[in-house]
Amino acid sequence: MTTTEGPPRAAGWRWSAALAAALLWLAGVVLAAPVAHAEDGYALWLRYRPRPQAQAEEYRAAATELVAPAATPTQRATRAELLRGLEGLLGAAPVSSAAVSRDGALVVGTPASSKVVAGLRRELAGLGREGYLIRSLRVDGRQATVIAANEDVGVLYGAFHYLRLLQTGRPLRGLDLREAPRVQLRVLNHWDNLDGTVERGYAGASIWDWHKLPDWRDPRYTDYARANASIGINGTVLNNVNSNALVLTPMYLEKVAALAEVFRPYGIRVYLSARFSAPREIGGLPTADPLDPAVRRWWKEKVDEIYRHVPDFGGFLVKANSEGQPGPQDYGRSHADGANMLAEALAPHGGVVMWRAFVYSDEEPEDRAKQAYNEFVPLDGRFAGNVLVQVKNGAIDFQPREPFHPLFGAMPRTPLMMEFQITKEYLGFATHLVYLGPLFEETLRADTHVRGEGSTVAKVVDGSLHGYRLTGMAGVANIGADRNWSGSHFDQANWYAFGRLAWDPEASARDIAEEWARMTFAPDPRVTGPVVEMMMASREAVVDYMTPLGLHHLMGRGHHYGPGPWVEGGPRADWTSVYFHRATRQGIGFDRSTRGSDAVSQYAPPVARLFDDPATTPETLLLWFHHLPWDYRMASGRTLWEELVARYDRGVAQVRRMRATWARLEGLVDAERHAQVAAFLAIQEKEAQWWRDASIAYWQSINGLPLPPGHAPPPRPLEYYKSLEFPHAPGHH
Amino acid sequence: MTTTEGPPRAAGWRWSAALAAALLWLAGVVLAAPVAHAEDGYALWLRYRPRPQAQAEEYRAAATELVAPAATPTQRATRAELLRGLEGLLGAAPVSSAAVSRDGALVVGTPASSKVVAGLRRELAGLGREGYLIRSLRVDGRQATVIAANEDVGVLYGAFHYLRLLQTGRPLRGLDLREAPRVQLRVLNHWDNLDGTVERGYAGASIWDWHKLPDWRDPRYTDYARANASIGINGTVLNNVNSNALVLTPMYLEKVAALAEVFRPYGIRVYLSARFSAPREIGGLPTADPLDPAVRRWWKEKVDEIYRHVPDFGGFLVKANSEGQPGPQDYGRSHADGANMLAEALAPHGGVVMWRAFVYSDEEPEDRAKQAYNEFVPLDGRFAGNVLVQVKNGAIDFQPREPFHPLFGAMPRTPLMMEFQITKEYLGFATHLVYLGPLFEETLRADTHVRGEGSTVAKVVDGSLHGYRLTGMAGVANIGADRNWSGSHFDQANWYAFGRLAWDPEASARDIAEEWARMTFAPDPRVTGPVVEMMMASREAVVDYMTPLGLHHLMGRGHHYGPGPWVEGGPRADWTSVYFHRATRQGIGFDRSTRGSDAVSQYAPPVARLFDDPATTPETLLLWFHHLPWDYRMASGRTLWEELVARYDRGVAQVRRMRATWARLEGLVDAERHAQVAAFLAIQEKEAQWWRDASIAYWQSINGLPLPPGHAPPPRPLEYYKSLEFPHAPGHH
Repeated sequence: MTTTEGPPRAAGWRWSAALAAALLWLAGVVLAAPVAHAEDGYALWLRYRPRPQAQAEEYRAAATELVAPAATPTQRATRAELLRGLEGLLGAAPVSSAAVSRDGALVVGTPASSKVVAGLRRELAGLGREGYLIRSLRVDGRQATVIAANEDVGVLYGAFHYLRLLQTGRPLRGLDLREAPRVQLRVLNHWDNLDGTVERGYAGASIWDWHKLPDWRDPRYTDYARANASIGINGTVLNNVNSNALVLTPMYLEKVAALAEVFRPYGIRVYLSARFSAPREIGGLPTADPLDPAVRRWWKEKVDEIYRHVPDFGGFLVKANSEGQPGPQDYGRSHADGANMLAEALAPHGGVVMWRAFVYSDEEPEDRAKQAYNEFVPLDGRFAGNVLVQVKNGAIDFQPREPFHPLFGAMPRTPLMMEFQITKEYLGFATHLVYLGPLFEETLRADTHVRGEGSTVAKVVDGSLHGYRLTGMAGVANIGADRNWSGSHFDQANWYAFGRLAWDPEASARDIAEEWARMTFAPDPRVTGPVVEMMMASREAVVDYMTPLGLHHLMGRGHHYGPGPWVEGGPRADWTSVYFHRATRQGIGFDRSTRGSDAVSQYAPPVARLFDDPATTPETLLLWFHHLPWDYRMASGRTLWEELVARYDRGVAQVRRMRATWARLEGLVDAERHAQVAAFLAIQEKEAQWWRDASIAYWQSINGLPLPPGHAPPPRPLEYYKSLEFPHAPGHH
Repeated sequence: MTTTEGPPRAAGWRWSAALAAALLWLAGVVLAAPVAHAEDGYALWLRYRPRPQAQAEEYRAAATELVAPAATPTQRATRAELLRGLEGLLGAAPVSSAAVSRDGALVVGTPASSKVVAGLRRELAGLGREGYLIRSLRVDGRQATVIAANEDVGVLYGAFHYLRLLQTGRPLRGLDLREAPRVQLRVLNHWDNLDGTVERGYAGASIWDWHKLPDWRDPRYTDYARANASIGINGTVLNNVNSNALVLTPMYLEKVAALAEVFRPYGIRVYLSARFSAPREIGGLPTADPLDPAVRRWWKEKVDEIYRHVPDFGGFLVKANSEGQPGPQDYGRSHADGANMLAEALAPHGGVVMWRAFVYSDEEPEDRAKQAYNEFVPLDGRFAGNVLVQVKNGAIDFQPREPFHPLFGAMPRTPLMMEFQITKEYLGFATHLVYLGPLFEETLRADTHVRGEGSTVAKVVDGSLHGYRLTGMAGVANIGADRNWSGSHFDQANWYAFGRLAWDPEASARDIAEEWARMTFAPDPRVTGPVVEMMMASREAVVDYMTPLGLHHLMGRGHHYGPGPWVEGGPRADWTSVYFHRATRQGIGFDRSTRGSDAVSQYAPPVARLFDDPATTPETLLLWFHHLPWDYRMASGRTLWEELVARYDRGVAQVRRMRATWARLEGLVDAERHAQVAAFLAIQEKEAQWWRDASIAYWQSINGLPLPPGHAPPPRPLEYYKSLEFPHAPGHH
């Protein structure tokens, strides 16, 4: 820049120079303070970062003006999200307009809110309340894109889908998309306590600031609702299933109502975990017997009171007669008696009961895996119409791998909800990179065979197999107050995958990973290629280094953090590891065949036959169903012991590969997130090695076998691994 | 922008237009995603936002190049902070240079690291290890600014001071500043538990992620160190005084070492709260008797082990024989015996013991306020040379107002550290806007008279009164994992004020508020004027609506959240409210005069005389020292009862005024912070009213007096206020 007078044409250049200086200054501002924390993961997959210039131009031409209603809260939320997204992605928001006036119009609405959409009424048939279509078409002679739905919330879902197209770098021409959820209740379960701790939470404290509610509504609640709506989640259970009756008192109901009000525009209903003994604890009644008229009256009045606070309250989630929680069996009543009492109170308001099937009696059964089935199958058909039974994906407890729960397919007259665990209680907490998409997919695609081949768990859950009137899928949330919500950047993918699979239980875990990686990092194959490969291999890796070949429940007592195959004794045998692995000098594994506990017979005959024979049981589930000698010959030609050791080492090697892959992405991923993921992968490698070493040291102490050649011995004696204690491991409350 | 060919001079304009478009696009980017969360409070007072153009230009001319060493971690931290700050404030960082080459050079260093500074060696005399000078001078014929110190850490402090000049809009010409701290140990006390909770913490979970340490060093730890260094804090006690011996085990010492390594470049030493019974709990010894040779050996070895992990470990903080904590008295030994044992182990390494004087015996004394004095004064002179006794500002417990602790001035041969509470355990938690500067200042300026007039508490604490060889000030931190660190934007000011007063105990609370407000909001009198007025009035407001006229300890049991003047019974009388207010039908107040508990006699005679007579006792402390009839005549001419009611109403009215003032700042303060403060002020008003109503309802139940005319009766009966329960109030662990 110079102050010397120049020839006339230099005037323009001086202007340019001034502008350039301003531009540089502004760039400096951009690169200084605000960006410093921009990639801390808070924005999740809704980052809306600028697209490259060429693509942004193409997109801008397809989104020149926005024709969107703003009369209802949901309409305003939809419109705001589109403006925010397009402004972020394209550098400028489209012009708002009352009607289509130019090419590139984006028209959104319902038949009631948009004349253009009213013309599409016929095409909206079959999309229900939440479905939508996105279509390129001409409106008044102009090129336009329409996001249309029967109800506002469908338009909101469509808007997120539309933004996703831009975020993932998809073309916007010739669009013709139709989407409707295949599952009705797509619900997060927060195991959040009223004191701000989270049971099995690895992302900091609870995001619910009960103390400051209802007066302070943290903007984070709105971002929570946005993120959930973007993946179709339409319900949230605010409090832990190990619940506290106080949440049903007026002081807390006011707080619950404030949250419900924040979530409502985003199509999210609030549910509560109900403590079965609440009539005694806060109602002053001497009993909580579900057949006692005073108890029934108390619940009816309590439910009426809740609906006065939250007119669209979703209903109750209940953990009853399980792990010390109170329940109807305390009064000699059945789970159906208990559920139906609550259902009766909720029915007039349109609420539901989600009754958990994760129960096991105080007396130890011969096989804990069989108990939920034995307890619930006899009750099929006895539950009220607004009750769903919520069943974990497997019969034990969210292990790295379990066969699908035998209840799926076994209760044709009772809507069964799937319960997945998004938080990684048994899979290394937040620091282990484990993408759960393949675990969810494996369960959903499992074939129950109850109505012949193709009777998948997905078809049970979406209701198509048995014609359920209600359908649902629950995910135990991995959300906390950590800046990145989930404790790690990659754990966000598990929240995302849960939502996408709840919307469509037959979606592909790999496609979801690809979509998530494009949004969360960049739609750049140099990044998403390696990232998706890491994600897809990660679940098998954790199975390998923790519980290979169908082993399960081998973690340390209480904290569930590290290895504890030696855990024995204590209050009950089925809380120990030795109960589940049954290792002896001769062999290892839990015999659930017809010769053993006969758990296999809870499956439909074709599945039961498959699992009854070690030769036809998938090796991934071998020791779940069979007790086999250490020298049992595997498909690889190796002995069981050799194979076990090989799997441990394969798991560790895979983590090492993930680290190397991630290291190569330095420079392609922002430094802040790259550093955290790199540090976590280093922890994962160390801990994978720990699991492997501790497990092998223990098995050797039992079987006395030498390590196969080429495998390193554990560097420390077994006593060292047994001596480690973690009284303050997170999430253990 | 057009593609049509134009005359020659248009070429420049086309360029300009393209640049303008790019600029607008960039502006869009700036205004879109990243800024969305930029004012969430995370940056504290180190926001480094761009100064207005005119001032930025002036500043840029004074900071054209940076001549700064980068050989040590502290030098690199200093240099990085200057570049970050100047880049943020001025839009561009100065050029880095090995030597002064132009006007406007900024030269930083020590005599060892900078030739320029070496020339100033003589001027650095008397500044010690941590002091610095900032001076405008000419170097090699060029205009320059020099930040000079004897040691790297002094330069770092000077750099923060220099940046503060820019942040607060001060001129950079003709600088001639000399600063050195007046207190040696300026220490935060974290009451953080190993399970991630924080006792009396109102800003979310602990920022120490013990589980992921030592492998994952959250960048937040560095920002914590930066913030502390910026206000001169040079030590941090990581764990709760109600401590857990596990923090002294090898697994945790590795974690502690990782934090120490992050903090070291910022001049911050790590300390730990030591559990006195650790030799039994983790050492396997049968006793923790401080005179037992095995116990002494255990501590010596433990301390040696700590220093192997943390070579610059600061020492131990100990809460012994207080509120159930173990201590030397369990073995019939004195506090000096206990402290000296630890001191002996620490002395060879240069560590200190900070031994808390907040003790009271299991047997109830006739006046709890007298106990620390009675216990510790006889021990004066018996503590080892590296022991400090840490004394709370008042004799009860961090009340909204207490007279200065009688120990100050009473132990001339024992270094007494001040312990302030930054977290607002008794002052409304995070939602009440209460600036503690005036409380700190009131205590520090209080005159003990022990060496004649002017023997202020500040002079005790800074060591000048008694010639202490060690000096210190501790603040119980209000820091948690909440995004804004302190739970509210205004509570950041209390952290800030503590640090500034620890550096200079005679600094002015108002000046500090002004400085903080300029940095935290903007150096704009339209903002800072009203903000400082709010802050300065806020402490008297909370005294008025909670505990006017010297009342104290009237909060609800356990949670300390709301009013509980009716609290009585329970394990011990001096944990009740009625013990402290002693209200009867006839009168109210605790008689600590020579006619009562005689606590006044613990003060120097001139002070004791003042407090002994209701007529000369400041009305702000009246009921602390005197039991008076309800119709006692106050200076205002009102009766005591009328005055009490008037004070409650004055407190509520002041909060109402703060709300109105803040509402007028809408548009001048960013929307995000404005909204949160506004919501919190609404909560504060509601809760101030609650304190006032509940208190008045209770006093009326005791004195049977009608309300003075013009004051509204409590809207609910006393029983309502007594019925409120807060079992999950935060910070109560």
